[in-house]
Amino acid sequence: MLLETAYAEAQQSLTEGGIPIGAALFASDGTLLGRGHNLRVQNDDPSIHGETDAFRNAGRQTDYRSTIMVTTLAPCWYCSGLIRQFNIGSVIIGENTTFQGGEDWLTELGVAVTVLDDPRCIAMMASFIDLNPLLWNEDIGVAE
Amino acid sequence: MLLETAYAEAQQSLTEGGIPIGAALFASDGTLLGRGHNLRVQNDDPSIHGETDAFRNAGRQTDYRSTIMVTTLAPCWYCSGLIRQFNIGSVIIGENTTFQGGEDWLTELGVAVTVLDDPRCIAMMASFIDLNPLLWNEDIGVAE
Repeated sequence: MLLETAYAEAQQSLTEGGIPIGAALFASDGTLLGRGHNLRVQNDDPSIHGETDAFRNAGRQTDYRSTIMVTTLAPCWYCSGLIRQFNIGSVIIGENTTFQGGEDWLTELGVAVTVLDDPRCIAMMASFIDLNPLLWNEDIGVAE
Repeated sequence: MLLETAYAEAQQSLTEGGIPIGAALFASDGTLLGRGHNLRVQNDDPSIHGETDAFRNAGRQTDYRSTIMVTTLAPCWYCSGLIRQFNIGSVIIGENTTFQGGEDWLTELGVAVTVLDDPRCIAMMASFIDLNPLLWNEDIGVAE
Protein backbone atom coordinates (compact mmCIF):
# COMPACT_ATOMS: atom_id res chain seq x y z
CA MET A 1 0.00 0.00 0.00
CA LEU A 2 1.49 3.29 -1.12
CA LEU A 3 0.44 5.14 2.03
CA GLU A 4 2.70 2.94 4.19
CA THR A 5 5.83 4.65 2.87
CA ALA A 6 4.47 8.11 3.58
CA TYR A 7 3.25 7.02 7.02
CA ALA A 8 6.66 5.56 7.87
CA GLU A 9 8.23 8.90 6.91
CA ALA A 10 5.80 10.78 9.16
CA GLN A 11 6.62 8.45 12.05
CA GLN A 12 10.33 8.92 11.36
CA SER A 13 9.85 12.69 11.60
CA LEU A 14 8.05 12.28 14.92
CA THR A 15 10.96 10.18 16.21
CA GLU A 16 13.31 12.99 15.20
CA GLY A 17 11.26 15.53 17.14
CA GLY A 18 9.72 16.96 13.98
CA ILE A 19 6.30 17.50 12.50
CA PRO A 20 4.76 14.14 11.55
CA ILE A 21 3.95 14.62 7.90
CA GLY A 22 5.43 12.26 5.33
CA ALA A 23 5.13 11.82 1.60
CA ALA A 24 6.38 9.71 -1.26
CA LEU A 25 6.43 10.12 -5.03
CA PHE A 26 5.80 7.00 -7.09
CA ALA A 27 5.88 6.15 -10.78
CA SER A 28 2.62 4.86 -12.23
CA ASP A 29 3.80 1.26 -11.83
CA GLY A 30 4.37 1.78 -8.11
CA THR A 31 8.14 2.26 -8.31
CA LEU A 32 9.29 4.57 -5.54
CA LEU A 33 10.94 7.71 -6.94
CA GLY A 34 11.48 9.60 -3.69
CA ARG A 35 10.29 9.72 -0.08
CA GLY A 36 10.63 12.29 2.64
CA HIS A 37 9.14 14.21 5.53
CA ASN A 38 8.72 17.63 7.02
CA LEU A 39 12.08 19.05 8.17
CA ARG A 40 11.10 22.39 9.70
CA VAL A 41 12.31 21.41 13.14
CA GLN A 42 15.13 19.03 12.25
CA ASN A 43 16.85 21.35 9.75
CA ASP A 44 15.30 24.65 10.83
CA ASP A 45 14.08 24.67 7.22
CA PRO A 46 10.59 26.08 6.66
CA SER A 47 10.69 25.21 2.94
CA ILE A 48 10.67 21.45 3.42
CA HIS A 49 7.24 19.96 3.82
CA GLY A 50 6.64 16.24 3.35
CA GLU A 51 5.75 16.67 -0.31
CA THR A 52 8.64 18.98 -1.17
CA ASP A 53 11.08 16.58 0.51
CA ALA A 54 9.75 13.61 -1.47
CA PHE A 55 9.85 15.71 -4.65
CA ARG A 56 13.44 16.76 -3.93
CA ASN A 57 14.54 13.25 -3.14
CA ALA A 58 13.10 12.00 -6.43
CA GLY A 59 15.76 14.10 -8.14
CA ARG A 60 15.45 15.86 -11.47
CA GLN A 61 12.65 14.48 -13.62
CA THR A 62 11.35 15.71 -16.94
CA ASP A 63 7.78 14.42 -16.84
CA TYR A 64 5.62 14.05 -13.74
CA ARG A 65 2.30 13.53 -15.47
CA SER A 66 2.00 9.85 -14.62
CA THR A 67 3.49 10.12 -11.14
CA ILE A 68 1.59 9.72 -7.88
CA MET A 69 2.22 11.91 -4.84
CA VAL A 70 1.19 10.16 -1.65
CA THR A 71 1.02 12.22 1.52
CA THR A 72 -0.20 11.55 5.03
CA LEU A 73 -1.96 14.93 5.21
CA ALA A 74 -3.91 17.01 2.70
CA PRO A 75 -1.41 19.20 0.82
CA CYS A 76 -1.18 22.84 1.82
CA TRP A 77 -1.28 25.56 -0.85
CA TYR A 78 2.51 25.50 -1.16
CA CYS A 79 2.52 21.77 -1.90
CA SER A 80 -0.63 22.05 -4.03
CA GLY A 81 1.19 24.64 -6.11
CA LEU A 82 4.07 22.20 -6.52
CA ILE A 83 1.67 19.54 -7.76
CA ARG A 84 0.09 21.97 -10.21
CA GLN A 85 3.32 23.45 -11.59
CA PHE A 86 4.88 20.07 -12.26
CA ASN A 87 1.69 18.44 -13.48
CA ILE A 88 1.80 15.58 -10.99
CA GLY A 89 -1.12 13.50 -12.20
CA SER A 90 -2.38 11.85 -9.03
CA VAL A 91 -2.45 12.63 -5.33
CA ILE A 92 -3.31 10.16 -2.59
CA ILE A 93 -4.09 11.81 0.75
CA GLY A 94 -3.97 9.92 4.04
CA GLU A 95 -6.40 12.30 5.71
CA ASN A 96 -7.96 15.73 5.26
CA THR A 97 -9.75 15.91 8.60
CA THR A 98 -7.18 17.91 10.58
CA PHE A 99 -6.18 20.24 7.72
CA GLN A 100 -7.21 21.19 4.21
CA GLY A 101 -5.28 23.18 1.62
CA GLY A 102 -5.67 23.11 -2.15
CA GLU A 103 -7.13 19.66 -2.79
CA ASP A 104 -10.42 20.90 -4.28
CA TRP A 105 -8.48 23.28 -6.52
CA LEU A 106 -6.33 20.38 -7.72
CA THR A 107 -9.41 18.28 -8.43
CA GLU A 108 -10.89 21.13 -10.48
CA LEU A 109 -7.64 21.31 -12.44
CA GLY A 110 -7.90 17.65 -13.37
CA VAL A 111 -5.60 16.04 -10.81
CA ALA A 112 -6.85 12.64 -9.64
CA VAL A 113 -7.24 13.15 -5.89
CA THR A 114 -8.00 10.27 -3.53
CA VAL A 115 -8.64 10.74 0.20
CA LEU A 116 -8.17 7.61 2.29
CA ASP A 117 -9.50 8.86 5.64
CA ASP A 118 -6.85 6.74 7.33
CA PRO A 119 -7.52 6.58 11.10
CA ARG A 120 -3.82 6.29 12.00
CA CYS A 121 -3.01 9.45 10.03
CA ILE A 122 -5.88 11.34 11.65
CA ALA A 123 -4.88 10.24 15.16
CA MET A 124 -1.20 11.03 14.54
CA MET A 125 -1.88 14.55 13.33
CA ALA A 126 -4.67 15.36 15.81
CA SER A 127 -2.40 14.38 18.67
CA PHE A 128 0.50 16.40 17.29
CA ILE A 129 -1.59 19.54 16.77
CA ASP A 130 -3.09 19.21 20.24
CA LEU A 131 0.36 19.03 21.84
CA ASN A 132 2.11 21.57 19.56
CA PRO A 133 -0.35 24.23 18.42
CA LEU A 134 2.22 27.00 17.96
CA LEU A 135 4.60 24.84 15.94
CA TRP A 136 1.74 23.64 13.80
CA ASN A 137 0.54 27.19 13.15
CA GLU A 138 4.09 28.15 12.18
CA ASP A 139 4.21 25.34 9.64
CA ILE A 140 1.03 26.45 7.91
CA GLY A 141 1.62 30.18 8.17
CA VAL A 142 -1.11 30.95 10.69
CA ALA A 143 0.10 34.04 12.51
CA GLU A 144 -2.83 34.69 14.79
CA MET B 1 16.23 49.19 -4.74
CA LEU B 2 14.96 45.82 -3.54
CA LEU B 3 15.23 44.21 -6.98
CA GLU B 4 19.01 44.61 -6.97
CA THR B 5 19.45 41.86 -4.39
CA ALA B 6 17.30 39.43 -6.36
CA TYR B 7 19.05 40.37 -9.60
CA ALA B 8 22.47 39.81 -8.02
CA GLU B 9 21.29 36.36 -6.91
CA ALA B 10 20.14 35.54 -10.46
CA GLN B 11 23.49 36.62 -11.86
CA GLN B 12 25.24 34.53 -9.22
CA SER B 13 23.25 31.50 -10.34
CA LEU B 14 24.23 32.15 -13.95
CA THR B 15 27.88 32.30 -12.90
CA GLU B 16 27.45 28.93 -11.21
CA GLY B 17 26.03 27.41 -14.40
CA GLY B 18 22.50 27.50 -13.06
CA ILE B 19 19.13 28.95 -13.97
CA PRO B 20 19.21 32.75 -13.54
CA ILE B 21 16.32 33.37 -11.20
CA GLY B 22 16.92 35.11 -7.90
CA ALA B 23 14.76 36.28 -5.05
CA ALA B 24 14.91 37.97 -1.68
CA LEU B 25 12.52 38.24 1.25
CA PHE B 26 12.42 41.57 3.06
CA ALA B 27 10.72 42.91 6.16
CA SER B 28 8.39 45.85 5.62
CA ASP B 29 11.15 48.31 6.62
CA GLY B 30 13.44 46.93 3.93
CA THR B 31 15.53 44.71 6.23
CA LEU B 32 16.76 41.68 4.30
CA LEU B 33 15.48 38.43 5.82
CA GLY B 34 16.81 35.99 3.24
CA ARG B 35 18.11 35.85 -0.32
CA GLY B 36 18.68 33.00 -2.73
CA HIS B 37 18.50 31.59 -6.21
CA ASN B 38 17.42 28.61 -8.23
CA LEU B 39 19.57 25.55 -7.42
CA ARG B 40 18.21 22.91 -9.79
CA VAL B 41 21.50 22.56 -11.64
CA GLN B 42 23.96 23.38 -8.85
CA ASN B 43 22.47 20.99 -6.27
CA ASP B 44 20.48 18.74 -8.61
CA ASP B 45 17.57 19.94 -6.49
CA PRO B 46 14.29 20.54 -8.33
CA SER B 47 12.60 21.87 -5.19
CA ILE B 48 14.70 25.01 -4.93
CA HIS B 49 13.44 27.90 -6.99
CA GLY B 50 14.58 31.45 -6.33
CA GLU B 51 11.67 32.16 -4.02
CA THR B 52 11.91 28.91 -2.06
CA ASP B 53 15.64 29.49 -1.52
CA ALA B 54 15.06 33.03 -0.23
CA PHE B 55 12.23 31.74 1.99
CA ARG B 56 14.46 28.95 3.34
CA ASN B 57 17.35 31.29 3.98
CA ALA B 58 15.08 33.63 5.93
CA GLY B 59 14.77 30.84 8.49
CA ARG B 60 11.77 30.06 10.63
CA GLN B 61 9.37 32.98 10.92
CA THR B 62 5.97 33.14 12.58
CA ASP B 63 4.36 35.98 10.64
CA TYR B 64 4.96 36.79 6.97
CA ARG B 65 2.04 39.16 6.46
CA SER B 66 4.15 42.29 6.28
CA THR B 67 7.03 40.72 4.35
CA ILE B 68 7.90 41.44 0.73
CA MET B 69 9.02 38.73 -1.68
CA VAL B 70 11.09 40.17 -4.50
CA THR B 71 11.84 37.94 -7.47
CA THR B 72 13.45 38.52 -10.85
CA LEU B 73 10.76 36.45 -12.60
CA ALA B 74 7.02 36.05 -12.14
CA PRO B 75 6.46 33.28 -9.56
CA CYS B 76 5.43 29.87 -10.86
CA TRP B 77 2.47 28.06 -9.27
CA TYR B 78 4.76 26.33 -6.79
CA CYS B 79 6.15 29.64 -5.56
CA SER B 80 2.74 31.30 -5.77
CA GLY B 81 1.42 28.55 -3.51
CA LEU B 82 4.24 29.31 -1.07
CA ILE B 83 3.25 32.98 -1.03
CA ARG B 84 -0.39 32.09 -0.44
CA GLN B 85 0.16 29.49 2.30
CA PHE B 86 2.42 31.74 4.33
CA ASN B 87 0.43 34.92 3.70
CA ILE B 88 3.35 36.88 2.30
CA GLY B 89 1.77 40.28 1.88
CA SER B 90 3.62 41.76 -1.07
CA VAL B 91 5.36 40.47 -4.17
CA ILE B 92 7.63 42.54 -6.41
CA ILE B 93 8.30 40.93 -9.78
CA GLY B 94 11.22 41.91 -12.00
CA GLU B 95 9.47 40.78 -15.15
CA ASN B 96 6.53 38.68 -16.32
CA THR B 97 7.26 38.82 -20.05
CA THR B 98 9.10 35.51 -20.44
CA PHE B 99 6.93 33.53 -18.00
CA GLN B 100 3.74 33.82 -15.99
CA GLY B 101 2.50 31.63 -13.16
CA GLY B 102 0.06 32.53 -10.40
CA GLU B 103 0.42 36.31 -10.15
CA ASP B 104 -3.18 37.11 -11.12
CA TRP B 105 -4.39 34.51 -8.62
CA LEU B 106 -2.31 36.16 -5.91
CA THR B 107 -3.70 39.57 -6.79
CA GLU B 108 -7.24 38.22 -6.54
CA LEU B 109 -6.38 36.81 -3.11
CA GLY B 110 -5.32 40.23 -1.89
CA VAL B 111 -1.55 40.04 -2.28
CA ALA B 112 -0.01 43.36 -3.35
CA VAL B 113 1.71 42.46 -6.62
CA THR B 114 3.99 44.90 -8.44
CA VAL B 115 5.55 44.17 -11.83
CA LEU B 116 8.61 46.25 -12.67
CA ASP B 117 9.11 45.25 -16.32
CA ASP B 118 12.84 45.47 -15.73
CA PRO B 119 14.69 45.28 -19.08
CA ARG B 120 17.76 43.57 -17.56
CA CYS B 121 15.59 40.82 -16.08
CA ILE B 122 13.77 40.33 -19.38
CA ALA B 123 17.01 40.16 -21.36
CA MET B 124 18.64 37.80 -18.86
CA MET B 125 15.76 35.33 -18.91
CA ALA B 126 15.03 35.57 -22.65
CA SER B 127 18.65 34.79 -23.42
CA PHE B 128 18.74 31.90 -20.98
CA ILE B 129 15.55 30.32 -22.33
CA ASP B 130 16.78 30.72 -25.90
CA LEU B 131 20.02 28.91 -25.11
CA ASN B 132 18.59 26.29 -22.71
CA PRO B 133 15.04 25.42 -23.71
CA LEU B 134 15.07 21.87 -22.34
CA LEU B 135 16.48 22.89 -18.98
CA TRP B 136 13.95 25.69 -18.75
CA ASN B 137 11.07 23.36 -19.55
CA GLU B 138 12.34 20.98 -16.87
CA ASP B 139 12.28 23.77 -14.30
CA ILE B 140 8.67 24.67 -14.99
CA GLY B 141 7.38 21.13 -15.51
CA VAL B 142 6.72 21.38 -19.24
CA ALA B 143 7.07 17.81 -20.48
CA GLU B 144 6.19 18.27 -24.13
